Amino acid sequence: MIRHFFETKIYYKDVDKMGITYYSRYLEFFEQARTELFSSIGLKVSNIEDLGIYLPVITCYCDYKISTKFEDKIIIQSEISKIPKARLKIDYSLKKKNSKKVSVSGYTIHAFMKENGKSTRAPNSILKILKNNLTE
Amino acid sequence: MIRHFFETKIYYKDVDKMGITYYSRYLEFFEQARTELFSSIGLKVSNIEDLGIYLPVITCYCDYKISTKFEDKIIIQSEISKIPKARLKIDYSLKKKNSKKVSVSGYTIHAFMKENGKSTRAPNSILKILKNNLTE
Amino acid sequence: MIRHFFETKIYYKDVDKMGITYYSRYLEFFEQARTELFSSIGLKVSNIEDLGIYLPVITCYCDYKISTKFEDKIIIQSEISKIPKARLKIDYSLKKKNSKKVSVSGYTIHAFMKENGKSTRAPNSILKILKNNLTE
Amino acid sequence: MIRHFFETKIYYKDVDKMGITYYSRYLEFFEQARTELFSSIGLKVSNIEDLGIYLPVITCYCDYKISTKFEDKIIIQSEISKIPKARLKIDYSLKKKNSKKVSVSGYTIHAFMKENGKSTRAPNSILKILKNNLTE
Repeated sequence: MIRHFFETKIYYKDVDKMGITYYSRYLEFFEQARTELFSSIGLKVSNIEDLGIYLPVITCYCDYKISTKFEDKIIIQSEISKIPKARLKIDYSLKKKNSKKVSVSGYTIHAFMKENGKSTRAPNSILKILKNNLTE
Repeated sequence: MIRHFFETKIYYKDVDKMGITYYSRYLEFFEQARTELFSSIGLKVSNIEDLGIYLPVITCYCDYKISTKFEDKIIIQSEISKIPKARLKIDYSLKKKNSKKVSVSGYTIHAFMKENGKSTRAPNSILKILKNNLTE
Repeated sequence: MIRHFFETKIYYKDVDKMGITYYSRYLEFFEQARTELFSSIGLKVSNIEDLGIYLPVITCYCDYKISTKFEDKIIIQSEISKIPKARLKIDYSLKKKNSKKVSVSGYTIHAFMKENGKSTRAPNSILKILKNNLTE
Repeated sequence: MIRHFFETKIYYKDVDKMGITYYSRYLEFFEQARTELFSSIGLKVSNIEDLGIYLPVITCYCDYKISTKFEDKIIIQSEISKIPKARLKIDYSLKKKNSKKVSVSGYTIHAFMKENGKSTRAPNSILKILKNNLTE
């Protein structure tokens, strides 16, 4: 299991007229969380892209359980639990800081794509790093 | 079945460094589409909210099949196919204009919520309009 | 003078917890408006970029006079009044539909940039179209 | 002078098809920066709003000098240099971490607004805190 915790905060830009975080904003938080997860195991997304490999989202799912509000501190746990073949799944669980209850949970599934837009298999250099970190 | 078609366009604001629409932006397009779907059957969301009823998203799902690009015209079909009890499900299917292939499909599930944040059942005034339009 | 009117609508995604449109969203509306202004004189931004010419914003200014709200229909007037040399200025004036009062006014100034990030002069092919339309 | 430094990072959500941060995103960074500036002197924006006082932006200005890119770490300096009467001006200066050159500079001017949308003078409780911190 590769697991990472990313902390951020809800700002005005995120909050809608109900006074709660607008639903699409969580996908941005998920993106920040997975970028930092990759970074934490030495896989900077910029570097992956320098190899001509992109990781577009092909599926995303989100369950909104408890709303978050302006100036709430939040922590997003992101997790990879399986070696990807053609598809990489990342799970997310977002909580308010100092809360044990999950506010929002979800996942994204990513393809590996070449610069020309064609899908490809995960490059060995990436697989190796994922494997090493999964079995630790 | 209540069905509506909403047309919009991909702008610079929507497109990421891969040159394709960023994944959370589709949730904004879905929101625009459902707002117009409601409006088309005489249920302006503003008016629903004036009754003290809100429709927060509690689940969303999205499948990204074909990417869309800057200045693509897109059409989002939104659909309600069942009378809601506590939950209202809306399905979306997004295509490039003049294309028969689905670019992005997905759904959102909404709760009915009172101003105090408590969930409630769908008000009769809203149910009646949905029923009338579903059976047409 | 090249002048164009672009109509759109305020959606939930745009509105903050004060119930008014969040201030950065107007820059997105301005971008939509200028993309359509260019398109209206036969200068699709996609086509300009296919020539290897980009138009990054180097300055922007915005005056917020009257707030706009959820489901307000808005019209953005965009205007080019001078032949650009190194810099292209576009003025914006945003009103609620059926209102004579300006809600938001502002401008953006754009550089002409080559793919390598270096600034360049406006290409003749673009200047010619702008000139023809300015003197009409 | 009240001065604060806020650090954040450029993510995929922020970057456009030129590979640089989209121009409206800097207004979100400015908002984050000023929220933290207020917080740093004991003026949580949530608490100001609990008093029924809002701080809508009435003018904003932005100069884009050096573009920022995906995974750039950035630092936003925000500054208040004068006691507000009816208007509060905040200046921003954004640099890449470890760079001395300003990437983006700008300012926002804010009104003090009551819940009913009417403008008001800055409340004494807020003025006092600003004064104390300005003269330090």
